[in-house]
Amino acid sequence: MRHRNPLASRNNDGGPALKERELKRKDQIEKPKGKLGVFIPGIGGAVSTTFIAGVEAVRRGIAEPIGSLTQLGTIRLGKRFEHRVPKIKEFVPLADLQDMVFAGWDLYDANLYEAALYARVINREHLDPIKDFLSGIKPMPAVFDRRFVRNLDGTYVKPGADLRDHVEALKEDISRFKAENAVDRCVMIWCGSTEIFQRPEEPHRSLEALQKAVDANDSRIAPSMLYALAALESGIPFVNGAPNLTVDIGAMVELAGQNQVAVAGKDFKTGQTLMKTILAPGLKARMLGLEGWYSTNILGNRDGLVLDDKDSFKTKEESKLSVLEYILQPQLYPTLYKNYYHKVTINYYPPRGDNKEGWDCIDIFGWLGYPMQIKVDFQCRDSILAAPLVLDLVLFMDLAQRVGMTGIQEWLSFYFKSPMHKEGLYPEHDLFIQLMKLKNTLRYLMGEEQITHFGLDYYMNDREA
Amino acid sequence: MRHRNPLASRNNDGGPALKERELKRKDQIEKPKGKLGVFIPGIGGAVSTTFIAGVEAVRRGIAEPIGSLTQLGTIRLGKRFEHRVPKIKEFVPLADLQDMVFAGWDLYDANLYEAALYARVINREHLDPIKDFLSGIKPMPAVFDRRFVRNLDGTYVKPGADLRDHVEALKEDISRFKAENAVDRCVMIWCGSTEIFQRPEEPHRSLEALQKAVDANDSRIAPSMLYALAALESGIPFVNGAPNLTVDIGAMVELAGQNQVAVAGKDFKTGQTLMKTILAPGLKARMLGLEGWYSTNILGNRDGLVLDDKDSFKTKEESKLSVLEYILQPQLYPTLYKNYYHKVTINYYPPRGDNKEGWDCIDIFGWLGYPMQIKVDFQCRDSILAAPLVLDLVLFMDLAQRVGMTGIQEWLSFYFKSPMHKEGLYPEHDLFIQLMKLKNTLRYLMGEEQITHFGLDYYMNDREA
Amino acid sequence: MRHRNPLASRNNDGGPALKERELKRKDQIEKPKGKLGVFIPGIGGAVSTTFIAGVEAVRRGIAEPIGSLTQLGTIRLGKRFEHRVPKIKEFVPLADLQDMVFAGWDLYDANLYEAALYARVINREHLDPIKDFLSGIKPMPAVFDRRFVRNLDGTYVKPGADLRDHVEALKEDISRFKAENAVDRCVMIWCGSTEIFQRPEEPHRSLEALQKAVDANDSRIAPSMLYALAALESGIPFVNGAPNLTVDIGAMVELAGQNQVAVAGKDFKTGQTLMKTILAPGLKARMLGLEGWYSTNILGNRDGLVLDDKDSFKTKEESKLSVLEYILQPQLYPTLYKNYYHKVTINYYPPRGDNKEGWDCIDIFGWLGYPMQIKVDFQCRDSILAAPLVLDLVLFMDLAQRVGMTGIQEWLSFYFKSPMHKEGLYPEHDLFIQLMKLKNTLRYLMGEEQITHFGLDYYMNDREA
Amino acid sequence: MRHRNPLASRNNDGGPALKERELKRKDQIEKPKGKLGVFIPGIGGAVSTTFIAGVEAVRRGIAEPIGSLTQLGTIRLGKRFEHRVPKIKEFVPLADLQDMVFAGWDLYDANLYEAALYARVINREHLDPIKDFLSGIKPMPAVFDRRFVRNLDGTYVKPGADLRDHVEALKEDISRFKAENAVDRCVMIWCGSTEIFQRPEEPHRSLEALQKAVDANDSRIAPSMLYALAALESGIPFVNGAPNLTVDIGAMVELAGQNQVAVAGKDFKTGQTLMKTILAPGLKARMLGLEGWYSTNILGNRDGLVLDDKDSFKTKEESKLSVLEYILQPQLYPTLYKNYYHKVTINYYPPRGDNKEGWDCIDIFGWLGYPMQIKVDFQCRDSILAAPLVLDLVLFMDLAQRVGMTGIQEWLSFYFKSPMHKEGLYPEHDLFIQLMKLKNTLRYLMGEEQITHFGLDYYMNDREA
Repeated sequence: MRHRNPLASRNNDGGPALKERELKRKDQIEKPKGKLGVFIPGIGGAVSTTFIAGVEAVRRGIAEPIGSLTQLGTIRLGKRFEHRVPKIKEFVPLADLQDMVFAGWDLYDANLYEAALYARVINREHLDPIKDFLSGIKPMPAVFDRRFVRNLDGTYVKPGADLRDHVEALKEDISRFKAENAVDRCVMIWCGSTEIFQRPEEPHRSLEALQKAVDANDSRIAPSMLYALAALESGIPFVNGAPNLTVDIGAMVELAGQNQVAVAGKDFKTGQTLMKTILAPGLKARMLGLEGWYSTNILGNRDGLVLDDKDSFKTKEESKLSVLEYILQPQLYPTLYKNYYHKVTINYYPPRGDNKEGWDCIDIFGWLGYPMQIKVDFQCRDSILAAPLVLDLVLFMDLAQRVGMTGIQEWLSFYFKSPMHKEGLYPEHDLFIQLMKLKNTLRYLMGEEQITHFGLDYYMNDREA
Repeated sequence: MRHRNPLASRNNDGGPALKERELKRKDQIEKPKGKLGVFIPGIGGAVSTTFIAGVEAVRRGIAEPIGSLTQLGTIRLGKRFEHRVPKIKEFVPLADLQDMVFAGWDLYDANLYEAALYARVINREHLDPIKDFLSGIKPMPAVFDRRFVRNLDGTYVKPGADLRDHVEALKEDISRFKAENAVDRCVMIWCGSTEIFQRPEEPHRSLEALQKAVDANDSRIAPSMLYALAALESGIPFVNGAPNLTVDIGAMVELAGQNQVAVAGKDFKTGQTLMKTILAPGLKARMLGLEGWYSTNILGNRDGLVLDDKDSFKTKEESKLSVLEYILQPQLYPTLYKNYYHKVTINYYPPRGDNKEGWDCIDIFGWLGYPMQIKVDFQCRDSILAAPLVLDLVLFMDLAQRVGMTGIQEWLSFYFKSPMHKEGLYPEHDLFIQLMKLKNTLRYLMGEEQITHFGLDYYMNDREA
Repeated sequence: MRHRNPLASRNNDGGPALKERELKRKDQIEKPKGKLGVFIPGIGGAVSTTFIAGVEAVRRGIAEPIGSLTQLGTIRLGKRFEHRVPKIKEFVPLADLQDMVFAGWDLYDANLYEAALYARVINREHLDPIKDFLSGIKPMPAVFDRRFVRNLDGTYVKPGADLRDHVEALKEDISRFKAENAVDRCVMIWCGSTEIFQRPEEPHRSLEALQKAVDANDSRIAPSMLYALAALESGIPFVNGAPNLTVDIGAMVELAGQNQVAVAGKDFKTGQTLMKTILAPGLKARMLGLEGWYSTNILGNRDGLVLDDKDSFKTKEESKLSVLEYILQPQLYPTLYKNYYHKVTINYYPPRGDNKEGWDCIDIFGWLGYPMQIKVDFQCRDSILAAPLVLDLVLFMDLAQRVGMTGIQEWLSFYFKSPMHKEGLYPEHDLFIQLMKLKNTLRYLMGEEQITHFGLDYYMNDREA
Repeated sequence: MRHRNPLASRNNDGGPALKERELKRKDQIEKPKGKLGVFIPGIGGAVSTTFIAGVEAVRRGIAEPIGSLTQLGTIRLGKRFEHRVPKIKEFVPLADLQDMVFAGWDLYDANLYEAALYARVINREHLDPIKDFLSGIKPMPAVFDRRFVRNLDGTYVKPGADLRDHVEALKEDISRFKAENAVDRCVMIWCGSTEIFQRPEEPHRSLEALQKAVDANDSRIAPSMLYALAALESGIPFVNGAPNLTVDIGAMVELAGQNQVAVAGKDFKTGQTLMKTILAPGLKARMLGLEGWYSTNILGNRDGLVLDDKDSFKTKEESKLSVLEYILQPQLYPTLYKNYYHKVTINYYPPRGDNKEGWDCIDIFGWLGYPMQIKVDFQCRDSILAAPLVLDLVLFMDLAQRVGMTGIQEWLSFYFKSPMHKEGLYPEHDLFIQLMKLKNTLRYLMGEEQITHFGLDYYMNDREA
């Protein structure tokens, strides 16, 4: 390597540097054994219930885990003519769906069958065959603070207002469930609501400051941070599916490093933003300029209701707006991308329920500056798109933890609207580069060659010689 | 390399194998000197006039070559923190726009100013400042055979019906122009119409058979093949912008090999198919299933008129339909892609002129099989999208020829709906892989490391040690 | 009346002229008594099963007859300040849903429950509660001739090939059903397939010629005509829901006149054409010019399959294309509508099933000729839109017959893509004028003032005086 | 008339009742003579400049007044077979375009050529031929109060803050222009901005209260009211093209009555709302239910900027939301229209300029409640749609004034989003009923029969007898 990596010695931002020799690779990676506990804040929400119901339906062989890279994805190894393309789940040793057990917290005390009915994502004809299973899962009372999520109003919450007490109560919930279910390893994944917009402040900068703030019941400590603290202090990897700060602050990365735990986030990349990170790289590939990108969303689920509060929307908006900037690189392409106008709106529209619809109106320009337009109407389903991401993230985080990849998991950027990344590095938002990064990381772990898609060698004679 | 490349020794399909030691690399590649002649069959059409007018406008500093990777593109070298991102045209030694001179053939004898007005792509306010230049370019009479393009009816054609005579007449046209304009190097690029559908037959299999068929005035020899023969026999690289067979037959690849000339094709990837090769990789990345993809196009230019003939459309249709199959790999993902219904229609719709519009209605399914829909309305401009491809291809083909990369240029797949490829290899249709292939080829030529987007090393300490 | 109506004395085209004094009006119109038999050729198709299942569901109070003017519509009487707005079904004496009984013919022998499942229009959860009722209805074997509908291939057909025998067999079917079910009055409504395109020829011009042709087994006599003959000869009103000629020929109008029977047609106005007759009057109201209208349809039901045959499509195409011409009146508005380009395509696209989707791309121009565009994506359901039309037509035709309005029912134009009309009159395609015509006809029958929407009188004092 | 019109004697809401015997009709209506002065507040805006430039272009024969009912419209008289369909402008005696002269006020002092360039609606190639004419029109300084339009900031305003002084200054402007240009008759039409939302309050209820409030410089008197006062006190008809209250208050109607002047308003019906009043009557005609209607608009002109202020948007929103309610009549059709969700947003999006785009997502339901969707993307041009309305309104208001139709002109509802109407009557929003009302009013004035579209008489013999 010709250049010294200036980031490699910095420990305070990406967690303690990984030590390559301590990473388990190839045959050192053991097959997972025993139960994998999945802890979900917001377990009664649309995403969680869709995820859990789906996993159970797949386990019973009555549905397919469409959308899941770990379950359906393949990975090409070696040269095109070798035709070595195993399934990802056969290539890397991931936990088996049969070994997953679920627990979580919610503001509403409905069991998961009731909650899934309320969410109106999965039809009754698919829920009823697994009613027994879903009814058996009941949320634990949540830690909630209405100042952070104004449009919700649940009452199934832990008593008191002392933050440290709440952290401890969550840790006890975890220990109890592990013990009762003989759980071997755990992952916690936030599927709760979007909290109001926060910028990192003093209490978020270092672990010491954070712990002090918790003790002082500082109003800048969001509920999601208490869940993360409980996880990391319990040695459990934490994934953040919302745009909340949560673990994307110095203090938490420090804690992850200290405890050798993996963290990943933030904000599941679904719907319109997913579409954006598909289309924008396409426009850039072809050097087509962008004059404006107007995005509107309509959705009628609880998520829509929460985002109808402007401060929660602000958190989401920041997450949604940044992707274009990073993908298009205006600093490299000022002629094409310096002055585009980007607007994102979200509208609560009850008729649509969970069937979110995103409409994008994209004004581009080509050769000699001539304008063209692209309109995309994406009639998607929020939770149907998110559920397989939850599954993949749980399995990959468990893998990361087992092989010793701790701290920020940048290789999982593929799944997030606002990928966490080491300070000093820019985040990667291009879906295709993200996928390449993910797959080349798997190849590295298993000792396979990196794929570059350079193909000239197929046309060369001498290399054989 | 563990596997012997079974393709490497086969000479009859990818042309004679490249010899790595004979390729010029890094400092061996000289800056181009002198004039670059660009020969265009169909020079009076919308794409050609938009290309040539645009190049001249850019040369005069009154417009930007938006859409051109060679002119605006950058290439990342080394690690993310090195911030080495030169412009492509400063990284590899490409011909300068100032050195390009244009010649070509057409069925109509209008000069290029008149032809550009007729095409109604570029507004008068942009054409008038370069009227002097455009008026000065007059087509040479075309070789034409109405059996191959039924809906056109030009009369500005070479006399007689003897194919060999036609090839010789084209070669003379080339020689004359080269001599009169002191041209140093040349590229020929087909911007003519879509010919009726042909499958490769006996006369197309070997060079010997082809030459015999030409001598026999065989009706299976399309006019585009005569142009290609004239180019390759004159040692001039040939690019095929239409879906016609032309050089995508054994006979031509053999000739390219014999004469050490580069060939590339086929069918410029613009509009709806471009969009398809952006979206389909995105769906596959996320393991979203496909139930159906309905694509309709409306356009009112001469291209639309030609494609109103069902046999010309058939040629185009084959080219358009295949992209999904290769990108989605149903053999690897039967659950997702085995049974989708793919339909493409093109409708001649005069109100739209060159402003092609493509509407895609995409039926996908996700988690547990739940259906979702994507609709894309692409209000594009056919020639505005194609012109920068012509520019890039001319410059890259000239580069390929200078560095000694002869035969099929698979690394230029990025530009084509139906990329030519070595027999035994599957073509690559994913726009993002195609771009990676192109850039890694450039990196290879200039002696830079391949980019893999593996990023774990940024998080590792030991590698420095 | 200042002008003598030149049409009034012509009897051979609109049927024998109505005699005003013989029409029953106001109190002369009796409440219908007894059962109303509904005979449906194509009873096993998607439209028929959706209609019949819906009527039964409404009768049982488990669904609403949305889309039905007779069931939900109101009619304003008198002045705006009078607030007299009865429901239509309370204003005119229509048959009650409870009194309808259903019979019909089909190519497939499935009972109506099976047929409804196959059609995949109504969900199982709505079909199962009325399974008993639907299973009890079995089609009678159809009269079928594959030369007229090439893409279908049913075997549940009447034996033999003698046309007169077929007519007689149909009439016997009718008599038997009437007797067995104590039916008081009947209506026949064609819900079968689109036959191949026919222009009226000699055998269609007069009743005598038609009867001769039937006797001669003339190949120009379509199966739908045999059904119509059976109906009219049995004194039963006939409605044509397809674009087939059927009763829209001189011979049938003559027969309708002779037998004093009402006829109406043709081609139910649903989906894209419905949308067109809503939008086009809007554009014309505002004097916006039209440059082009491109319409594409995708559908995957049996109707889609039939229309995949180009000769059946031709019949449909004629029906679909004509509406714009009549609404826009290019002869009156040459500046606006003389040169527009109108294109309609239908594509068989199985993923969509009965959920037809129509996409319209409309190029309009305004003030000084500046262009604008409208795109409409109508994700409709073919049979859901058609079923209430069947209900309304059955009830209104029964009314017409009872009050003595025989021959062509132009006042029902509202329901048809190609309204039948008296020779010498142009058909009315504007949905809003059609509705006005329908309602003013009802007002006339019940002795109420015609509504003109002239409102100046509200602002005038003297009129009271 | 069986019912006594309870509205006829009320004078305080629709102005003093029209006296039928005093109305001029048929031959009493004289051809207009002399110049017609058109006074426009906001004369430098996009709508005004598009209107004036267009009128001049039409006068010079270089463009067509597309979109104008008065110029291109026809009117059917008598029976269908009479074929009497004169042009409206040949049927009623309207002012000639050649006789129109223009004056107005604006916040910016640019002449109309400069203002039209700034508006970027009409291309330079159409503006340059009439540059002489447009440059010659200079705005007079405006009466402006930034509290009512926060996002604008012009400085070309009348000095001082005394409201009465402003009214007098405007009246002097009017007198001066009339004298200098030998103007015979005048119309004032508001093409200025949308003011912040106001509900009618005490000072708006009676003329006396209004005049007192003006004298007291009451902050509830909007600038637009001062213009209206100046017009009505000068005996000049006033049209309100914005959703501002202006003349839609008791005080102004009283003044209009006292001075025998015509008033009309409010808010030009263009773009998305126009589309809504076309589609909604269509849905209602077919008794299709509505679950939700989501409308978003993007536009980048000055209007968009003004509406980016939430209080101005509130005024517009009220105007836009009400149309559905009145058209769909939920009180008559509770099953269909009681619970729909209606949302309208407007987004300032500079890339689009005046080329407003409206996207509608309409959730409907049909037979048995099955859901369907309609999406409409209207890529319109705001000022191109509004300009012909300005022309028609000026001409029809002049006609109304000449024939003695004073007070509220409900028959012009066709042109407005929020038609002014007599208290106690509901406004008519259905575009097709509005057009019928307008045309039947013209027929009435010219002594022609009302058209009812009742067509049964064509099929009757006896009526002739």
